[in-house]
Amino acid sequence: MTKSNAGNFFEDFIPGKTLIHPTPQTVTEGDLALYRALTGNRFAQYSSAEFAKTIGLPGLCADPLHAFHIVFGKTVADISLNAVANLGYADGRILRTVVPGDTLRAESQVIGVKENSNGKTGVVWVRTKGINQRSEEVMSYVRWVMVNKRDAASPAPEPVVPDLPPAVAAADLTGYPEMKAWPFAQSGSRHVYEDYETGEKISHVDGMTIQEAEHQIATRLYQNTAKVHFDFHGQKESRFGKRLIYGGVVISIARSLAFNGLANAGQILAINAGSHVSPLFAWDTIYAWSEVLDKAELSDTCGALRLRLVAVKDQNPGDFAYKNADGTWAPGVLLDFDYWAAIPRAR
Amino acid sequence: MTKSNAGNFFEDFIPGKTLIHPTPQTVTEGDLALYRALTGNRFAQYSSAEFAKTIGLPGLCADPLHAFHIVFGKTVADISLNAVANLGYADGRILRTVVPGDTLRAESQVIGVKENSNGKTGVVWVRTKGINQRSEEVMSYVRWVMVNKRDAASPAPEPVVPDLPPAVAAADLTGYPEMKAWPFAQSGSRHVYEDYETGEKISHVDGMTIQEAEHQIATRLYQNTAKVHFDFHGQKESRFGKRLIYGGVVISIARSLAFNGLANAGQILAINAGSHVSPLFAWDTIYAWSEVLDKAELSDTCGALRLRLVAVKDQNPGDFAYKNADGTWAPGVLLDFDYWAAIPRAR
Amino acid sequence: MTKSNAGNFFEDFIPGKTLIHPTPQTVTEGDLALYRALTGNRFAQYSSAEFAKTIGLPGLCADPLHAFHIVFGKTVADISLNAVANLGYADGRILRTVVPGDTLRAESQVIGVKENSNGKTGVVWVRTKGINQRSEEVMSYVRWVMVNKRDAASPAPEPVVPDLPPAVAAADLTGYPEMKAWPFAQSGSRHVYEDYETGEKISHVDGMTIQEAEHQIATRLYQNTAKVHFDFHGQKESRFGKRLIYGGVVISIARSLAFNGLANAGQILAINAGSHVSPLFAWDTIYAWSEVLDKAELSDTCGALRLRLVAVKDQNPGDFAYKNADGTWAPGVLLDFDYWAAIPRAR
Repeated sequence: MTKSNAGNFFEDFIPGKTLIHPTPQTVTEGDLALYRALTGNRFAQYSSAEFAKTIGLPGLCADPLHAFHIVFGKTVADISLNAVANLGYADGRILRTVVPGDTLRAESQVIGVKENSNGKTGVVWVRTKGINQRSEEVMSYVRWVMVNKRDAASPAPEPVVPDLPPAVAAADLTGYPEMKAWPFAQSGSRHVYEDYETGEKISHVDGMTIQEAEHQIATRLYQNTAKVHFDFHGQKESRFGKRLIYGGVVISIARSLAFNGLANAGQILAINAGSHVSPLFAWDTIYAWSEVLDKAELSDTCGALRLRLVAVKDQNPGDFAYKNADGTWAPGVLLDFDYWAAIPRAR
Repeated sequence: MTKSNAGNFFEDFIPGKTLIHPTPQTVTEGDLALYRALTGNRFAQYSSAEFAKTIGLPGLCADPLHAFHIVFGKTVADISLNAVANLGYADGRILRTVVPGDTLRAESQVIGVKENSNGKTGVVWVRTKGINQRSEEVMSYVRWVMVNKRDAASPAPEPVVPDLPPAVAAADLTGYPEMKAWPFAQSGSRHVYEDYETGEKISHVDGMTIQEAEHQIATRLYQNTAKVHFDFHGQKESRFGKRLIYGGVVISIARSLAFNGLANAGQILAINAGSHVSPLFAWDTIYAWSEVLDKAELSDTCGALRLRLVAVKDQNPGDFAYKNADGTWAPGVLLDFDYWAAIPRAR
Repeated sequence: MTKSNAGNFFEDFIPGKTLIHPTPQTVTEGDLALYRALTGNRFAQYSSAEFAKTIGLPGLCADPLHAFHIVFGKTVADISLNAVANLGYADGRILRTVVPGDTLRAESQVIGVKENSNGKTGVVWVRTKGINQRSEEVMSYVRWVMVNKRDAASPAPEPVVPDLPPAVAAADLTGYPEMKAWPFAQSGSRHVYEDYETGEKISHVDGMTIQEAEHQIATRLYQNTAKVHFDFHGQKESRFGKRLIYGGVVISIARSLAFNGLANAGQILAINAGSHVSPLFAWDTIYAWSEVLDKAELSDTCGALRLRLVAVKDQNPGDFAYKNADGTWAPGVLLDFDYWAAIPRAR
């Protein structure tokens, strides 16, 4: 009896089936310090316990992206160990704040399967929930991946393709803060909800180069064990000949760079969609730009911006590289990430 | 009067002498987060405070290997600054759990000396104790090293060679948990004590490449200051021409890889023996396999596996490389580590 | 309206003006663990909560250099984003201990300006204060930088050059500990105040090589975002063609190396002066030596040493490289750092 985990194959994903992912992980102040040191996160509500209290948080909390990576990391051994590609995210709800001392576990339900015409792979959709030690849902998102079949001869299942919203509706956003007492002098920007216009593009100017040690440390922090991120010897024979960087590293660094232009929009309320457009490797430099896709007034003090965050590599983010005229991705685009963030309204 | 520490030489190790090692170190949740991020540790009882409570622990605790590295690190400036080789470990007892807030200090007693026939070096045996802020012993182990003589002309001491057990007797194992309520769905494996057979070999499949920054950060975390790990300029003229990685980094990464196959055997109860067979350098990839050497029933709910953990580099651990027919080490073997671990019994 | 921060130029620095720097940062035990792991800090009062209590501290605290880097990091986006050179520090007062849970923010007042004769740059002096969540000043220091003018045609301001003391007067040192119960067996040295003589030079022997990942992680830990430290792509076209390491990394590593020779002088009381003499890059190895510049008796149990800490690269610190006969810097000198540190007196 082999005792090592061989991961699940396409045939193992039965619509309706729930997978309980090991291992639960307690988030500590040590995790938060590491997250900042690895990503450069400076958003004031995740940097200062005092600032956090001005918006009703109990103190230092985990950035929702940090919590997302922890939840995601748990799913890898069950969902994507045999994945060919990580195709996308949708309908990501941030439901509760994660504070130091909280223990996160993850469960996924299979909500869709569709075999590819080549008969060798298929697409699997799962809805993953992050759950705390009080059995409260802290987040929920849909992810779909292309997975190898164990046996090309096994029959194709009945296709089930979930109906996914292009974005979380503004009316469904929850957990947004009271921003009446927002300390603008401390936050790094005077810009409020009313200053941003739909269609506006913002270059985040700065670049950050990533090293092998950095992405490995970050990815282990989240207990994501996908071997493509760690096993240089094994990757020598792979398509790229080297380690691939976990896509979550790109998301978090791009978001941290977005401080420069979006300093008051530090709290993510929902993840609408996300695609890892091209792989990132050590020694590449990440730049980022954002586009305001939509706006919504959530309360008298708090608005939400729907933002497209685009990460590019080794190029000026002020060129706003995105898609070519034919709809294909422009060279160097790493990430297309669509989310809602809270931002104070004008007083 | 020179104020820098030149370390001890063979002549300084007098049997019976006790060395008090600076500096005590307080273990915090920050240390635990870093340990996970640097090693990839996923064993559930060291990952989740909630899981830990199910086996009677107060919450997140330090993995005994982490505590071992801290205690070991303290001894380096006194024991092995002038060491030629780190020869082995024996009779390692894990006596108490280390929780965040505990302060560890280390003391070593010289228990053996034997000059080598070349007259230039000798072997020194010490028993090192890790002690917490309540003066309780948290661990104890024997280590032996080959150390340079200060002066080849100094006379050889009377040889004293301690009698060391090949392994800690199962009857002497202590601190094993109550595993009745072990949450198998969260731990990453269904395999229990009864599923493992003496002689069984397990490939841990995954590989982890290590970078200079990673081993340096880990080694400083433990306050191990051996210059061979840090001083690239000084090492250029050395035998290998580059920095050597602290052997404890290999132990911890190999153990973390062993999660894949031994997920329920996360708690080390004793260290029976250990040899660093060959040096590891940055960019090498560590793989690991285990062999079940012995089994022991400790209680109705808890068994112990005596395991040989073998770390190899840049090769498939499923080949189980160990020793050649002539008893020499097979190529690429890094570590031979013999320990007892707790594992739940079948209900 | 551009929303990215372009930084301040020489014209923006008006004497008397105060800049409130985003973003406040809460220091946690996670930060302390990372600081140790990145610098190798072993001074007992910052390593052990128990040891700290023997000198009247509440437990584990931030090394004042760590707090300095946090305060400094906050100022970068406002003070030195367009800086040509970081010219020096002076009159650095360490006023209060920073404990985990404290939130630090930073403010700077412009205290001097002087346009350079080339009309393109000018020197700006600021006094920066680090302030905790109780609005208490935890430190204060003067720093001067050379900054680009926005427009070479703008008129030169009236020069204002502050009068800076060569060192903090011993009588002004504050916050020094009661050292009566100093646990010498644990601290790593028996040497006390009386053992050190003015003019004495100490080689700290050991070397530490620094990697890109290490300095980037450290610099982000302090939320210092200067692009020269992070943006390899952008730096390819720069004078050095690569990333420069934040000078604070050099200070902290050199200080950690100084443990070997100054183990009892772990607590910095004041920063008298500091110059980053030459740039450090990844793969360089830092060595350090110290010279006792002055001595002062602060109490019956505590003395202070005024120390020059010199960091050099890729050479034996026992050669005490400093200045050439003509007053220029000797090759390989990285840092000249002048400070006061507390040390126990003979009993």
